[in-house]
Formats: sequence, structure tokens, C-alpha cells
Amino acid sequence: MSDALLAPEIDARTRAAFEAHGFMRLLGARITALAPGLCEVRLPFSPSLTQHHGYFHAGVSAAIADSAAGCAAYTLMDPTSSLVSVEYKINLLAPARGRELITRARVVRPGKTLTICAADVYCREGEEETLCATTLTTIMELKERTPSSAAEEPPRGGSR
Amino acid sequence: MSDALLAPEIDARTRAAFEAHGFMRLLGARITALAPGLCEVRLPFSPSLTQHHGYFHAGVSAAIADSAAGCAAYTLMDPTSSLVSVEYKINLLAPARGRELITRARVVRPGKTLTICAADVYCREGEEETLCATTLTTIMELKERTPSSAAEEPPRGGSR
Amino acid sequence: MSDALLAPEIDARTRAAFEAHGFMRLLGARITALAPGLCEVRLPFSPSLTQHHGYFHAGVSAAIADSAAGCAAYTLMDPTSSLVSVEYKINLLAPARGRELITRARVVRPGKTLTICAADVYCREGEEETLCATTLTTIMELKERTPSSAAEEPPRGGSR
Amino acid sequence: MSDALLAPEIDARTRAAFEAHGFMRLLGARITALAPGLCEVRLPFSPSLTQHHGYFHAGVSAAIADSAAGCAAYTLMDPTSSLVSVEYKINLLAPARGRELITRARVVRPGKTLTICAADVYCREGEEETLCATTLTTIMELKERTPSSAAEEPPRGGSR
Repeated sequence: MSDALLAPEIDARTRAAFEAHGFMRLLGARITALAPGLCEVRLPFSPSLTQHHGYFHAGVSAAIADSAAGCAAYTLMDPTSSLVSVEYKINLLAPARGRELITRARVVRPGKTLTICAADVYCREGEEETLCATTLTTIMELKERTPSSAAEEPPRGGSR
Repeated sequence: MSDALLAPEIDARTRAAFEAHGFMRLLGARITALAPGLCEVRLPFSPSLTQHHGYFHAGVSAAIADSAAGCAAYTLMDPTSSLVSVEYKINLLAPARGRELITRARVVRPGKTLTICAADVYCREGEEETLCATTLTTIMELKERTPSSAAEEPPRGGSR
Repeated sequence: MSDALLAPEIDARTRAAFEAHGFMRLLGARITALAPGLCEVRLPFSPSLTQHHGYFHAGVSAAIADSAAGCAAYTLMDPTSSLVSVEYKINLLAPARGRELITRARVVRPGKTLTICAADVYCREGEEETLCATTLTTIMELKERTPSSAAEEPPRGGSR
Repeated sequence: MSDALLAPEIDARTRAAFEAHGFMRLLGARITALAPGLCEVRLPFSPSLTQHHGYFHAGVSAAIADSAAGCAAYTLMDPTSSLVSVEYKINLLAPARGRELITRARVVRPGKTLTICAADVYCREGEEETLCATTLTTIMELKERTPSSAAEEPPRGGSR
């Protein structure tokens, strides 16, 4: 990931936003790397995160990819902004079997209003990582709001 | 939803596949309606399913929409087939605030190999339902395998 | 489509924006119905719009669906706004064989900044229409600009 | 792009499939690089390919990205197979203004039945290339058919 340093207050703000998600705690997900425009999230295997065959459920991959994308975007935003996920698309490439699920998100195109991110999801078994999903996500910055994180506001915030 | 009756063994097989997902149990999701090409899934609010503002996390909407789409597709497949989610796209339309999250999935186009489904996600508060997300999902049928459910196999099964 | 009437100036403005696209003229596409939040576009078959087997190329379906979605959204926007397509997803459901390609777009969720549209694409052969593609599109309104149409500005306009 | 050599008959077969598309000829698109799992397509600016502001229409970017993805996938398939585009998603990142549009597609995950490709679209003005769109595409291999190219068959070929 990038060697660029993230300002300490942005680092702290982004991690706090991530940790405020009850759902990320339920999944056992944590941020394991953070840099300008980049975020890595990992979670360990648990039987409660599986589908029928005992692999990670696709919804788990999608959820951490979406959250990591939001955090990657958030590192580049105004300190007073919040954000929402507008939409994403995920391609499931291989069964997510292994001890740990890892997603690495990067900002593809930052913007004044919309930021586009890509996140890949890997499953680790021993030393080997297998690419098991890839996503494209559109995130909207909401100006002059309390910092928060992905998907917490409507795509059209002020209209309600 | 459709008035058409689902053969009892297909109904049972589909519900069993859904219930074999540890992740659906973790979320507290259950099938509340099932008919040929149609599936409704609901889950009650819980603080562990939230994002920063206390609404349902987008990943929860996506996960139940994907699973409901898989079940809707599964009702139309050969009894000996299993299936996988190949990909999906979700648009988040409004904050998912409320007591219950409901997704209704329908088969848009059944196929010999691929089935395309659409699922809408609603959030219920009192008597009112608000459309909060919409999805399009591609599902692949895997012939002559043990019945199972979405995303448990690679898009290209036999290659590994 | 909707029986609601579109104000004459909005009708004229939307049609003018559509007709300003050189690419729609090249395709031979024209608006055949327009109502608040709805737009239908049609184009006749031509050998220059085909893929290998002589059916309509998927890119033709996608292009008219995107433009129809933009026009449907545009009918609901401020008279001084312009718009851009942020992203879309298309599922190709059946071969587009026939004499005419028809797309019907509708606004799923209008918003202050983003509008989500769905557009289906049909192929007509004789009296029969076959659903051959379905799309979901995100469109962004750009305030206080010269009226224009989809995809002509960046998702983040003012940043350049 | 890759230094790997493409077998001459695969190179010829892929180029022939591309050139059989009337729509690619109408756009003026041509293959400018081809390697195993990779394809580059370019087209020059023309007023007939524009939207309102005179930039390339988004539908042009999408069409060449889809076709390039199909060709990239096709280089890895059985000689007797044909293929179809199942679905794709495109994010429009910047206005496509310039003299030439270039798309570079790569296979992200080849598969027995489904192949996932990513294609980026660049607009060139002078010596500078600007990333103006990115796509993710799902392509299905149809075994034991006459070689052909993307989107020419239904996702479920044999069912009709």
C-alpha cells in the first residue's frame, strides 16, 4: 500500500467512524492498514459468517469491501464531511474458504461530490491469498456534517 | 407475491438451504414468503446490525437481498442442482431506519445456466415501508450437485 | 406509461438535449414517449448496429437505455440544471434480434443530487416484444448550469 | 500489456470476430493490441460519437470496453467456443474529451464457464491520457459453437 503518511487526526477520525459500526463489530472486522486513499480490513473465520458449505458468505465479503472503500474515500475528504455509499457492484470470483478474509480498497477517482473506489477481497489459508471477489463502489461526500461513515445517509441527504 | 403454489419438496429444499447459512442465522433473517420465482426475507432491527447513525448497515441489506435472490432462483431449478451468486449490484436509495428490514426478490429471467433476479429492500417503521435499496443479481446453476445455496461455489465450479 | 402531463417547456428542453447528441443521431434513436419521470426511446434495425450474428450489439442497448434514463431523470430536475450519468449496470437477458429496439426508462428514486433510474430494453419482431436487457443507472444533477444531457460532465464537475 | 505471445490462429480468430461487428465498424474502433487475456481497442474522435457538449458519448466508451473485454476473454477460450457478455457495470469518471478513445481490457479471472474482465477507458489529448471510465464485465463461454463474439447469444444459449 502507499507509503504516504496519513495525518494523525484523519487516521483517528477514520478508525473511529469504522468502529462506530455495530455491524463491523458483529463481523469481527478491523482496519489493519490505512493510508491516503487506501484501506485494508481483515476479519477472522467464524462459523457464524458462513454459507451452506462452511465458506465465508458473500455478504461478508461485500460488507467489508464496502466499509473499506468508505474508509479509503474518507481519508481524502474534508474533515467536516460525512459520506454515504451510493451503490456498488461485486463480482464473486472464487469460494471464500480460509482462515481470514482480507479486503484492500483504493480510491480510483476522488471527486468534489463523488468518489469511486475499487476493493478486492482475498481469502487467506496458511500463507496463500486467493482473490475471491472484486468490487466497484460509488461514494458521496456530504459537506459540513458530523463525520460519520458509509451508507448512513441517503444519497440525497438534505432532502429529508 | 405470486399465488402459484410451490411444490412441497421444493419449498422444503429451499428453506433448508437458506437455514444452512450461519450468516443468515447471525443476522436473524428468515424466509417469510416463497413461491415459484419469488422469495421474501425479513429480519428485525438489532444494534449489532447498524452503521454509525444506528440504521441498518448497507451490508445487511445486500446480504439478505442476495440470499433472497438465490432462493427465488432456486425454486425454479432442477432438484439436483446447486447454485452460486456470480455478481450483484446494489443501489442504496434511502437510509435503512426502522424496526424491520424486508427484501422481496423475483426472477427476472430464468435460464439454463444463468438466472437474473431483482430484489428490492424495504425498511418498515410502524405500518410504513420505505424502499431503501434495489439490486440486480446474476446466479449460476450448477447441475447435478448436492442442493445448496448462493455463493458457495466458484462461478466456475469444476475448474478446481 | 404515466398519464401525467409534462410541462411543454420541460418536454421541449428534454427533447432538445436528446437531439443534441450526435451519437443518438448516428444510432437513429428517437424519443417516442415522455412523461414526468418516464422516457421511451426507439431505434430501427440497421446492419451497422450489429454484432457478429447480425443482432443488435449490446452497446446499442446500453447506449439508448442510458440516454433514456437521463431524459427520464431530466424531466424532474430544476430547469437550470444539467446532469451526468455517474454509472450504470446492464444485464443482457436475451439476444436482441428484431426490427426495432425499444427502451423504457423510469425514475426509481429522485433525489436532490442523485437520481436512480431503471430502464428495460425490448426487441420487437412483428407484434412481439422480448425483454433483452435491464439496467440500473445513477444520474447526478448539476445545479445552475446550462441544460444538457447525460455523461457530458464529470461526476465532480467543479473540480476541474 | 503482457509480453506473452498469442498463438497466430487465436490472434486471427479474435480479430476476425471483432471485425465481424457492424457496430465496431460504425464506431471506427479497431484492435491495437492483443495478448493472452489482454486486448486494447482504439477509436478516433468523430462528431457523430458525441453527446451535447461534443465529448465522446458514454455509450461509446461502454461499447468498446465491452467488446475489448470480450476479445480479452476470447483469447483464453477453447478454439471451438463462442461467448456472450452476461452483464457489465461502468463507472464514468471524467468527461471523455480528446482526439482518441482507448480501452484496455484484461481478464481478472478466467473460468470454465464464466470469465470476469476489467476494462479501463482513457481519452487521449496530445500526449496525455485521462482515465475516463472503468468497467467490470462477466462473460460466458459457450462450448462447441462457431467462434463468434460478445453479446451475440443469450446468457442461456441452448435454451432457445
